[in-house]
Amino acid sequence: MTKADGEFVWKRKHLVGLDELTSGEIAHLLDTAESFREVSTRSIKKVPALRGKVVGLLFFEDSTRTRMSFELAASRLSADTVLFTAKGSSVAKGETTLDTCRNIEAMGVDIFVIRHGQAGAPHMLARNLSASVVNAGDGSHEHPTQALLDIFTIRRRLGRVESVKVAIVGDIAHSRVARSNILGLRKLGAEVVVVGPPTLVPSAIAAMGCRISHDLDEVVGDVDVVNMLRVQFERFSSTLFPSVREYSRLYGMDAERLARCRPDVLIMHPGPINRGMELTSEVADGPNSCILQQVANGLAVRMAVLYLVSQGTE
Amino acid sequence: MTKADGEFVWKRKHLVGLDELTSGEIAHLLDTAESFREVSTRSIKKVPALRGKVVGLLFFEDSTRTRMSFELAASRLSADTVLFTAKGSSVAKGETTLDTCRNIEAMGVDIFVIRHGQAGAPHMLARNLSASVVNAGDGSHEHPTQALLDIFTIRRRLGRVESVKVAIVGDIAHSRVARSNILGLRKLGAEVVVVGPPTLVPSAIAAMGCRISHDLDEVVGDVDVVNMLRVQFERFSSTLFPSVREYSRLYGMDAERLARCRPDVLIMHPGPINRGMELTSEVADGPNSCILQQVANGLAVRMAVLYLVSQGTE
Amino acid sequence: MTKADGEFVWKRKHLVGLDELTSGEIAHLLDTAESFREVSTRSIKKVPALRGKVVGLLFFEDSTRTRMSFELAASRLSADTVLFTAKGSSVAKGETTLDTCRNIEAMGVDIFVIRHGQAGAPHMLARNLSASVVNAGDGSHEHPTQALLDIFTIRRRLGRVESVKVAIVGDIAHSRVARSNILGLRKLGAEVVVVGPPTLVPSAIAAMGCRISHDLDEVVGDVDVVNMLRVQFERFSSTLFPSVREYSRLYGMDAERLARCRPDVLIMHPGPINRGMELTSEVADGPNSCILQQVANGLAVRMAVLYLVSQGTE
Repeated sequence: MTKADGEFVWKRKHLVGLDELTSGEIAHLLDTAESFREVSTRSIKKVPALRGKVVGLLFFEDSTRTRMSFELAASRLSADTVLFTAKGSSVAKGETTLDTCRNIEAMGVDIFVIRHGQAGAPHMLARNLSASVVNAGDGSHEHPTQALLDIFTIRRRLGRVESVKVAIVGDIAHSRVARSNILGLRKLGAEVVVVGPPTLVPSAIAAMGCRISHDLDEVVGDVDVVNMLRVQFERFSSTLFPSVREYSRLYGMDAERLARCRPDVLIMHPGPINRGMELTSEVADGPNSCILQQVANGLAVRMAVLYLVSQGTE
Repeated sequence: MTKADGEFVWKRKHLVGLDELTSGEIAHLLDTAESFREVSTRSIKKVPALRGKVVGLLFFEDSTRTRMSFELAASRLSADTVLFTAKGSSVAKGETTLDTCRNIEAMGVDIFVIRHGQAGAPHMLARNLSASVVNAGDGSHEHPTQALLDIFTIRRRLGRVESVKVAIVGDIAHSRVARSNILGLRKLGAEVVVVGPPTLVPSAIAAMGCRISHDLDEVVGDVDVVNMLRVQFERFSSTLFPSVREYSRLYGMDAERLARCRPDVLIMHPGPINRGMELTSEVADGPNSCILQQVANGLAVRMAVLYLVSQGTE
Repeated sequence: MTKADGEFVWKRKHLVGLDELTSGEIAHLLDTAESFREVSTRSIKKVPALRGKVVGLLFFEDSTRTRMSFELAASRLSADTVLFTAKGSSVAKGETTLDTCRNIEAMGVDIFVIRHGQAGAPHMLARNLSASVVNAGDGSHEHPTQALLDIFTIRRRLGRVESVKVAIVGDIAHSRVARSNILGLRKLGAEVVVVGPPTLVPSAIAAMGCRISHDLDEVVGDVDVVNMLRVQFERFSSTLFPSVREYSRLYGMDAERLARCRPDVLIMHPGPINRGMELTSEVADGPNSCILQQVANGLAVRMAVLYLVSQGTE
């Protein structure tokens, strides 16, 4: 994957998960994102890289902000986009996901961006389509571009990923964001500790190379980054979750807990925030928070992903 | 706001309401719309004025036609657009309006076009975002581009706005269209009379500089323009409203009442029309109606607004 | 319609149905599609033919794939598109279809692509609008671009349409696809046999110049093309339809029945497929199936339609 002159050669035509990527590929992706980041600072925020190409945004599940981020990334590369949402579509008429995608591929879509409720759907599509497939979140499996933008943000802010200590806090068991972050961070040599109540942190996760803690206060003084996962309120009715107030007290970040962190700790969150739940407003809008930078970096990362897979051949 | 050589210099980066604008600013906006109107008559209806800029269309409330009008205005200026609707979005996940908009701003949106159910939402956003904010209707407060296109239509048809006599008819109390029209028309020196049943015309409205009447027939012979507000059927269940038939008889425009108007009276309506309610078909499709011209002028006005706010600095 | 030098001159500004077209017009349309088909094979899949024009996609009924196909066809011609769907729109506010379309026309839409539940809606609009109107399916009346892409696929695969023998199988009575196919195929000299249970094949259809059969097995050995209509499951509750299993046994295509067809028979389906119902997967994905080619050809045909009506004058 490295040419004679040392230049890295990207070969993948799909991005289905960070599990499949080498550390060299992840680093190349982040480097490419760095160069696209500059485009967003121009007065005319467009490059012709994907002119005449079509990016299909297939959202079998709703996700307004991920859809918007990919749509704007595609526009910035001068691609055309076409949106498919499951509602009121042929999915409702009983068509299989593969048939739906084969049909849309036949319309000339070059890159599929797929959000799907079923883990593994993007992998299945990557095996069966000629077009490129980018996973925009599949069930509780992976959300690779979210992890890449998180890691990109860490690298930009701290200058490196290797040996950086990252705490990921919350419902680890059901979080594709956590999974993809752990995979990517570990490949780049970061140390990861996952933190949450025992019901939400499966002990098997240690096999991914991360430490497990159930006590956020024991962890915060020792890490460079705290990535707070979004609480899925709909899960609170289950017996897995403590009460809202209890959760917030044990695993939320407020000014008092922030004071126990390193002064330059990065506070991250994939959004949308539940203010007063994972983070108090003081923390979310404070100097340690890099939540909006994550969003801005997401554009650059997704431009890099769309561009690279469009060049891939295997 | 006027340069040494007499050229007007637009400074505002937001358009939240006509309340904030001077008569000079409104006039400049209408002049700019006049020059953009010509673009719509070309074979290739596009100018590169906003190429590489992103217009976010944020519709917290549905409004198909206002959304389409702004979307087409942005396309004609060569901007990219991205649509956000409240349904199935992070709003449903409990995110605040400001957090939603800050996130979308971080994705590189340059101009926000906001329709929101809450009066004052665009003002709050204008204070808190770096991007430009254009109010596309906020609660029962203002709908400045609708009023601007109404006034633009009057100016084009009658050659002036000053001293023109305008009747605005219907549910004045709950109408942002009425409010913005009164503000704009008064600033440009028009005379305004508002007409409707006492339950729908608050006497306090006189403080905006308009006359109040409860008798349309007493008014119609004396005005240059009759602007018929859309009846919100959902309000008819309330005690504020007379019956449909009663409303139509007292405040609707039919051929008989039109015969009592000046021969060249302009009949306006913001749409969508309830045929047989505010207007009979004979009137809506007759020679005095300029309803479709209002729609066409809306494009030019919205192009002017998007262009000017993109140049604004304060 | 043919110039002195023998070149065909297209004059129509609307495409409301195949009923209105001459065989020469249909042939010219297919020839134009052939030239646009090449565009889709280029690396940059765009031509500037409709730059600065606006295509309004008005879907009064949902149809994700037809909408996407027209949207991508318009993009490839460099037109701007704007989408209107009936949900949450002024239609819900009681506006008539004509008023809705007149308003959208006033916004500068050049070509209307209309899907409507009511037969004849596109014809009514073509008579009342200045813009071009393209029928994307009206009630159970016509779906001309679907038929054109079917016929285009036959012509490409078999080299001709004249004298080709085509079976159309299923619910003929309620199918706009069947109606438009019969009209187009007959005009180009194909032989058509319609096949289905007596309750779904009205004997009056013979007046369109096609043979009627109720026995698929009696037909399949003798035809070049079998076009399997989609089963509308929602109709199965009615007394018109046999049971699902019965339907599939009598009118579905499986490997056994395919073996009784000519070896090079073309199996077509307008999609979305009910696998195991109209077609088994073996047939749908087998070498005789040209279902995905139909979809790909749909782009070229719709590009041709949009381009030609934009040139039309009457």
